[in-house]
Amino acid sequence: MDEFLKAALEEAKKGYAEGGIPIGSVLVHQGKIIGRGHNRRVQKGSVVLHGEMDALENAGRLPASVYKECTIYTTLSPCPMCSGTILLYGIPKVVIGENKTFMGEEALLQSRGVDVTVADDKECFELMQNFISEKPELWNEDIGV
Amino acid sequence: MDEFLKAALEEAKKGYAEGGIPIGSVLVHQGKIIGRGHNRRVQKGSVVLHGEMDALENAGRLPASVYKECTIYTTLSPCPMCSGTILLYGIPKVVIGENKTFMGEEALLQSRGVDVTVADDKECFELMQNFISEKPELWNEDIGV
Repeated sequence: MDEFLKAALEEAKKGYAEGGIPIGSVLVHQGKIIGRGHNRRVQKGSVVLHGEMDALENAGRLPASVYKECTIYTTLSPCPMCSGTILLYGIPKVVIGENKTFMGEEALLQSRGVDVTVADDKECFELMQNFISEKPELWNEDIGV
Repeated sequence: MDEFLKAALEEAKKGYAEGGIPIGSVLVHQGKIIGRGHNRRVQKGSVVLHGEMDALENAGRLPASVYKECTIYTTLSPCPMCSGTILLYGIPKVVIGENKTFMGEEALLQSRGVDVTVADDKECFELMQNFISEKPELWNEDIGV
């Protein structure tokens, strides 16, 4: 597995161990991780800190020029909120662990010129499947269902 | 002015008084404000807490059915992040103070069936214009420019 996707998966596993929703993300700039995060709905009672949002928040305030040289890695296809955030900051590249559990706004991202890669990773998928079978109501809450 | 847009404007003014970006928002359910917020980039060093996001965060974790009966009021046209969040939670109605300072993703929202109303409010506009003339770099940072 790609080292950065692996780092995102490690974040997802941390979230799972905390009793949270196991989706993780890292923001990478010039070959270096500058922000790591995972979904914090359970841990912080947050409705905005999806994995990608948490990674961006943890990266802190950055010049626009930095975002425009970044790649964001996420274990699961980004929802409308996270996709919108990628568009807001002009992050040009997204690497996704899997999109079989949930298909996010990949088409919207691509229509705006974002480079989207899906790894179709088995471990990312199985982690989500295990979680959803254990806590389906929490997963539904996270995607507004 | 509509009472809820006025409440959003009060939030924006609070943000301005704190030295922050003066954009405010309220989430309204069945005629009652259930979340209030304003942009917290300066106050919390946050890159995700735009006004709308802060209002949603302050409303806390809600059942999907509640979001689907809400209207979100915001003093400024919602950016891609905030628009994506409105789509994620299925908020059916958005009332916007003004969109002359910044045109957000109103067309995307409408294409997904969201009811978008623009009040074209002079006070919302002037607050942003004053702020931008004072701190243009902060405004640019907030919209990823």
